[in-house]
This record gives sequence, C-alpha cells and structure tokens, in this order.
Amino acid sequence: MSNTKGYAAYSPSEDLRPLDFDRREIGPKDVKIKIAYCGVCHSDIHFAHDDWGMTQYPVVPGHEIIGHVTATGSDVTKYNKGDLVGVGCLVDSCGECPSCKDDLEQYCQTGMVLTYGSPDPVMGGVTHGGYSTQIVVTEDFVLRVSDKLDTKAVAPLLCAGITTYSPLNYWKVGKGQKVGIIGLGGLGHMGVKFAVAMGAEVVMITTSPDKGKDARHLGAHEVLISIDEEQMAANAGTFDLLLNTIPVQHDLNPYIPLLKVGKTMVVLGASPVDLHTMGLAFGRKSVAGSLIGGIRETQEMLDFCAKHNIVSDVEMIKMEDINTAWDRVMKADVKYRFVIDMTAFQ
Amino acid sequence: MSNTKGYAAYSPSEDLRPLDFDRREIGPKDVKIKIAYCGVCHSDIHFAHDDWGMTQYPVVPGHEIIGHVTATGSDVTKYNKGDLVGVGCLVDSCGECPSCKDDLEQYCQTGMVLTYGSPDPVMGGVTHGGYSTQIVVTEDFVLRVSDKLDTKAVAPLLCAGITTYSPLNYWKVGKGQKVGIIGLGGLGHMGVKFAVAMGAEVVMITTSPDKGKDARHLGAHEVLISIDEEQMAANAGTFDLLLNTIPVQHDLNPYIPLLKVGKTMVVLGASPVDLHTMGLAFGRKSVAGSLIGGIRETQEMLDFCAKHNIVSDVEMIKMEDINTAWDRVMKADVKYRFVIDMTAFQ
Repeated sequence: MSNTKGYAAYSPSEDLRPLDFDRREIGPKDVKIKIAYCGVCHSDIHFAHDDWGMTQYPVVPGHEIIGHVTATGSDVTKYNKGDLVGVGCLVDSCGECPSCKDDLEQYCQTGMVLTYGSPDPVMGGVTHGGYSTQIVVTEDFVLRVSDKLDTKAVAPLLCAGITTYSPLNYWKVGKGQKVGIIGLGGLGHMGVKFAVAMGAEVVMITTSPDKGKDARHLGAHEVLISIDEEQMAANAGTFDLLLNTIPVQHDLNPYIPLLKVGKTMVVLGASPVDLHTMGLAFGRKSVAGSLIGGIRETQEMLDFCAKHNIVSDVEMIKMEDINTAWDRVMKADVKYRFVIDMTAFQ
Repeated sequence: MSNTKGYAAYSPSEDLRPLDFDRREIGPKDVKIKIAYCGVCHSDIHFAHDDWGMTQYPVVPGHEIIGHVTATGSDVTKYNKGDLVGVGCLVDSCGECPSCKDDLEQYCQTGMVLTYGSPDPVMGGVTHGGYSTQIVVTEDFVLRVSDKLDTKAVAPLLCAGITTYSPLNYWKVGKGQKVGIIGLGGLGHMGVKFAVAMGAEVVMITTSPDKGKDARHLGAHEVLISIDEEQMAANAGTFDLLLNTIPVQHDLNPYIPLLKVGKTMVVLGASPVDLHTMGLAFGRKSVAGSLIGGIRETQEMLDFCAKHNIVSDVEMIKMEDINTAWDRVMKADVKYRFVIDMTAFQ
C-alpha cells in the first residue's frame, strides 16, 4: 500500500494482505460485515489515481461489497448475524435534507458519505471501502441480498447495477418502448439486462460488431453500429431513451437525432462532452445525468434482480491480482466486471 | 438586394423598396396579409449570412409579422378581410406526423415550412418572409392578434415571445417556483415578462449589473451576477428552471449547480456549448433544447399576452435602416427588439 499520489492501491512489492483496520467500534445502529466479495469499479482506479482531485491517501477502494453480518449493534432491527448483505457506494447521509427525505441519499445536499474517500463522520479521516476483509456500516445503508442469486456476481449490482437501473426506472422504461444502450462494458451490460427485463425493445449502440454480438447474447434485440451513417439515419427519431455508458470524453451530437421528440439521453460517464444545442432544439430533447441510486431504490433493484434472476457477468480475481485487473479495466479487457474473492482471507 | 453569400439582404446602394413578389395566387385555404410591422430577429442575420449553411439567395427574412387580412380564399373560415393577424416562424407542416397531430408543428418529422428560406411547397423555390409588404399563408398558420395591445410591439411575440413562452409553459412554471433567466436581450426580456406573469419568483442572471437594473424594470424580482462566485454559491440548488438565452458558444457548467435536484436548464441558443456531465450527475439534472412553439401554443401565448398586457419593448425602424439595425443587433445594442415599420409602403 502506498500513499504516493497517483499510485495504485496495492503493489506486488509490498505486503499483499488486504488492510483490516478493524478500527470502528460497533455503534448501536451499526452492522459489522465480513466481506466475501468486492467488485472492481472504474471509479476505484480514478480515485486511487486522484483523477478527480479529491483523494486522500492511503486509499482503500471498493464499493460493490457483498458479505455476511458478523455482529450487530444494540439498536439494530433489520439484520441478524449471518445475514447475506451488501454495501454500495454510500455509507451515510444527512438524513434531513429534501433529497434524503425523498430517499435520494445520493443527492444529499449536505454531502453523502461515500463508502471510500469521504470524510468519515464517525472515525475522522476518510472512509475506507471494500478492498478489505470487513466493514462496519450503519444499518440504514446496508442492503439485503437474496441467496437465490450467484452471490459473487451480485457484487457489481451495488454500483454498475444501480447506476443503470436508476435512470431506466426514473424514466419509466417498459413495454412498447425502444431503449438504446450506448457502449458495452460494466455499465452497458447491466443496462441491457435491466432494459430487457423491464420489457423494452433494447438496441445495443456500439462501434463494434463484435460487441453487438456479445450484446445479443446478453439479451439485446437489435444492434446499431454507431459509425454507420446509414444505419443511424434509418433509426432517427425512434428511441424513447438512450443510456450512454461511454466513460470518456466523446461527441454526443451523433446520438441526439436518434431520440423521439421530447426524449432524453442519460449520460452516465463523468467527463466533458461535445454538444451542440441545435440538435436538442429540434425536438425539445434533453441530455441528463444520473448518479447511482438511493438506498430504497438500490434495495428495489436487488429485489428486481432476485425476481428476474439478474446478476453481473464477472471474472473472479485474487487480491494479489488487483494491479493486473486494473490494467485490464483501463483497456476495457473484461467481460464485464472483476470481482475480488475475499473469502481466501476468512 | 444581393445574392452574394454572406451579404446582408438590403444594401443602401441598391433599390430600397422592400420586395413585393405578389406571386402566390390566393388558394382556397389561403389568407393574404398586408404587412404592417415585422420584427428583426437575430436569425434573420444568421440566415442572410448563411451561418447555418442552408441559405438560398435571394433571402427575404422576417418571421415576426403583423398585418391585416386583405383577401381570403373560398374555404377560409377563421379570418375575414380587415382582421389583425400575425405570422410567426412557420407557414406550413405535413399535418400528419405524430408531432403535427400533437400540435407540435415546429417538430414536424417530415419538415416544417419555415416562413423564409424553406423549400416552398406551393410556389417552388424557397419561401420569402416578412421584410415585405404582403404575404400569403394558409389560414391554419395564421394567428389572431388582439387589438388591445400596442400592435407594433406585438410583432416580436411571434418569435422571441413564443421561444421563451413555450419552455416556461412546457416545464410548468408557476407560483412557488424560482426561475432564472440567463441573459437579457430579445429573448431574455420576454422570458422575464412571461415568468413574472406566470407567478414565479424571477431572477435575472447576468454578468452585468446594468442589465440587472434593466431586468428589475421589466419585473425581475432579483438579480444574480453570474461572475460573482459568492453569489452563485449562495444560490446553489435553489432554481426550479433556468432559461438560458445566451446566443453564442459559452460554458454551461457554472449554471448547473444553481438547479435543484431533478431540474432543467433550457438552452435556447443554437451553438456548441461547454459541458461536463459530472454536474448533471450530481442531482439528476438536465440540459434541454426548445424550438419556438406550435401554432396552438403560439395562439395561446398571444391570448396570454392580451390577458396580461404583455408586449415586447421595441425600437421602430424604417426599412432603409435595416443594415444599421443589423449591425446594432450584432452588438446587442437594442432594447430589446427592432421592428420595421412597413406602413410607409401602404
């Protein structure tokens, strides 16, 4: 582990055991969780590299956490020892602002507490995430996980899953609608699965015919090659929603004409984008953002997954393989999410 | 009149009489209008200069037309000779696509017919607009104008008016809402008047304290100086809608934090913009476009103006002053709309 700016969290030259701070006492409303699996999110890398200029080292990334309850505080009512639970991107929020009262803790107006890298209101310093063997979280930010699903493949639902489920849910995707998922990676593959399960006609929009094939295996009904101008023109004005999962700066303008009048492209990446407003004007169209989901919606998403037998497609890794995994994430060389197996430490 | 690309429609060295093609026979559903006033819109200049790459010369601009009916076709039922009427940016549309059936002719999917510069389905060539003494338009695209209002100041309602009214109406602005109008020009001054009349708390957002004062005279309740970071921070998360009337490329990012969770900035200019999606994500916010309004909504806007005694603030010019006026429009040196007096030719 290094605290040098821009350095990955783990290095083969250092002690490979995951950190176990075991530093937070179990408060009355706290749940202690032994971590079994933790998904690897692109944000982990951005954060460890301080790409967003907000990192405090040392960093313990990880916000796609699955594990079992090992202890509960005296006032905990929702969980018992042994329960299978999850923790996503949030571990606390103010609970009092309009967003929190609307179950939108991700838009907390005094500042949500991220699972890692946020000022820690309980312990001081910053919060530490799921690249670890255990975590203590207040019960209101712990999610119930069905044991009907493949547990290790549930982990990425806590970020990649809710990030795509929330906009599909908010913009009321359902039967009779045509939904485009732009880009096929960790987010895109979940977007396809959810939109299909919600009953929409789902189109994978990609530059790559190979990704098109993969998307069909995931359930997409059609493939639209975004660099084929004829195909794009033939699909103009036909989409009820576009979910854009491209994680880097790119040109939004070619996608806008695909939307029907009055419809929206939700951009999930956090980057500058190229946009000309003329395309929005001709059709009263919108470009929107969306950030993960609140705790109630995340639980709803997990329950939806249990009902529809939805999990992520994952590749399991050991903790010591994390740097290789990060390199592969940077090259988009994973179908579709790495998950760290923490059970080796238990 | 010149057909040289990039040249203004009229030149002092040429014959100054406005064109009077008088070329369209009055069809059964047509209304012939003697033009009394025509507003000067920034689009006229863009079009004459072929800034959008779609101009066919010669150009007769003008889409803020007020006049009196001088003749009607045999099947016209809505208008009689002598009626005070208006014509805005549209003179026809397909009438059959979903947008037209929804009274959204401005989003016609086979292509609306713009008042000037569109392929003319009746006469061939391109349509010619209101910098003229008369115009023939099918009655469904003619608007009824109240004679209670100052007629010459009604002209700009046909474009600047409906362009701001439509988004305020669509996004349901009303009492209890805080609405920001960004920029004070032809559009911005109408945005202030409408939002005030709709009952909202209206904030003029501008770089210029002088424009702030002017906006207060127009009815704005508050002024927010957009280059004052403290003021901007103090207003973060408080706006229900932002109406951005800045007509040139600019950075949208400083305005996004002003919006409440889930709210929208409507950008009325047609230009590239600088946008980072991170700002949209933190609050599920949107950037939207909007284009004028349909005929039904334009009539509703004119009726709203008659009820609330709303007109544009105008400066009257003669036809031969058009080039000076255009130069002043380019310098934003007009409060807030030039209107050409065509009555001199009658």
